[in-house]
Amino acid sequence: MPEIKDILEGSKIAGARMIRLIEDCDPSAFEMLKLLYPHSGNAFIIGITGSPGAGKSTLIDALILEFRKLDIKIAVIAVDPTSPISGGAILGDRLRMQRHATDEKVFIRSMASRGQKGGLSRATKDAAVVLDAMGYEIIIIETVGAGQGEFDIATIVHSTGIVNIPGTGDGIQAVKAGILETGDVFIVNKSDKPGADELVHHLTMMINMRKPSKINSAKTNWTAKVLKTIARDGTGVKELADTFLSHFDFMKKNSLLDQKITEIEKFYFKSLLKDLTLNKILSFMETSEEYMKVLKNIQSHEMDPLSAAELVVNKICVFRGND
Amino acid sequence: MPEIKDILEGSKIAGARMIRLIEDCDPSAFEMLKLLYPHSGNAFIIGITGSPGAGKSTLIDALILEFRKLDIKIAVIAVDPTSPISGGAILGDRLRMQRHATDEKVFIRSMASRGQKGGLSRATKDAAVVLDAMGYEIIIIETVGAGQGEFDIATIVHSTGIVNIPGTGDGIQAVKAGILETGDVFIVNKSDKPGADELVHHLTMMINMRKPSKINSAKTNWTAKVLKTIARDGTGVKELADTFLSHFDFMKKNSLLDQKITEIEKFYFKSLLKDLTLNKILSFMETSEEYMKVLKNIQSHEMDPLSAAELVVNKICVFRGND
Repeated sequence: MPEIKDILEGSKIAGARMIRLIEDCDPSAFEMLKLLYPHSGNAFIIGITGSPGAGKSTLIDALILEFRKLDIKIAVIAVDPTSPISGGAILGDRLRMQRHATDEKVFIRSMASRGQKGGLSRATKDAAVVLDAMGYEIIIIETVGAGQGEFDIATIVHSTGIVNIPGTGDGIQAVKAGILETGDVFIVNKSDKPGADELVHHLTMMINMRKPSKINSAKTNWTAKVLKTIARDGTGVKELADTFLSHFDFMKKNSLLDQKITEIEKFYFKSLLKDLTLNKILSFMETSEEYMKVLKNIQSHEMDPLSAAELVVNKICVFRGND
Repeated sequence: MPEIKDILEGSKIAGARMIRLIEDCDPSAFEMLKLLYPHSGNAFIIGITGSPGAGKSTLIDALILEFRKLDIKIAVIAVDPTSPISGGAILGDRLRMQRHATDEKVFIRSMASRGQKGGLSRATKDAAVVLDAMGYEIIIIETVGAGQGEFDIATIVHSTGIVNIPGTGDGIQAVKAGILETGDVFIVNKSDKPGADELVHHLTMMINMRKPSKINSAKTNWTAKVLKTIARDGTGVKELADTFLSHFDFMKKNSLLDQKITEIEKFYFKSLLKDLTLNKILSFMETSEEYMKVLKNIQSHEMDPLSAAELVVNKICVFRGND
């Protein structure tokens, strides 16, 4: 079991063990997170998302180099929401990044979807709390997909970078998926390929059509940036790193960061509430005579599963009023 | 809103509307399912799973032809657990099958993962209940992946067919993923390609190494079959259809079917119980003053999200004892 003290002192071994507990849905993780949480809140959390093959890992590898030049302590969590079966190639990508593993101020960790199912964003947020409390100044969360499906990265990061590549119709897909609304920085990677300028143009046009946020006046709205990179040789990556840092500054100056943090905390709270309720009903099911009786009724076909579930929920799970 | 009467009479339009309600997590779907459930329980439900590109859709298209020769009423639900973004190719596959759409006794429907997230297997089971009540004698559920990840098909079907293709290491992946334990019929599709016999040999060897089920004696255990097919030209598909039918017969004769049905019902009940509990807490959250107070405390940083969630769950969500 990792020690809170070691995690707060930045021990990579303790941190990795703690994240493992989170991945395994170990019940002790929750108690430890409560102790770590007050020490978090200092990191700048960046999400990097995009289709498979867009070059996310290579780009992050290059971003690590840039942030290290500024002596920033940086951690990367690569989240794979798909089943471990197809994880081979992704593991290969991770290996490339591991050349930073000997750097004391770089931490890289993959997180797979295990038992968490719908709760992968909560587990990822848990891990970000740990890395934040460990003293990492920037935390990058890498994930495939973009906004839709089971894992919405924008609910846990301060700044979202969306990686696109020319000639794949990624821009159009982004519009379809509604992710244009959540992107803060659009990266046209592999920008030496044909169609890069068209993609930049397309994305810029789309950004200009975005509705201003309901909360903020036009003046305090961040206008999403479009940048060209070639991650393979580092072209444009310094500019990308600077853009993320200036987005962070912009948010701080316009009190957008506090707003964003509150949104993230609310989302985290709701996820936790759902998980804890589910845990409670699951452990209840293991011990309740009532539940066993209902199971027997289903088995003997005296009751159908739908009516049985309704009965149990209405009879047993009660929410107390405002007392 | 579809009418129960029309669904029971087998109206395709009413059935499709009902499945749409399920997909959309419409609250009226639950009440209707309660009415439909007593009319279900007659269909033989087959799961067909395998990697993308294994030829599942072409195979099912050919299976439909075989079952129709026996005048069996057949329905297919194609479940796509991935995000709609990558759904293009899959839609194309569906279109091929649609040549059966004019056949009164064939029903084909895709189901995408929308809001359900972890609950896709419940939504698919819901849809199977509808098709069963509509009078379809065989229901095929097609899905990518195999047992792991967010959607475990074996929890909702009577017989599981796993489609493998030569030369892709699918056999080895199946072992890794632990799906060998759940397969009843192993299909080596595209068996005119090099490596087909090796794959058959490999799968047969693996099946022989399977541990016998804890519940059944060796005598009443179904030995998983390995079959070669070329879905494209129909080779081996009649034998495959016969194998599924003989598995169904075998289960009925050895009272394995009742066991399996009970397992499916228990799993369905548990999924429903989880969903209903979550619905209850979500609607509670929208109206509770207590909840609003806690949200404010999070916003003012007087309380961290973890402690807040714990407080709400312990204070408000109570399970009554065995009264």
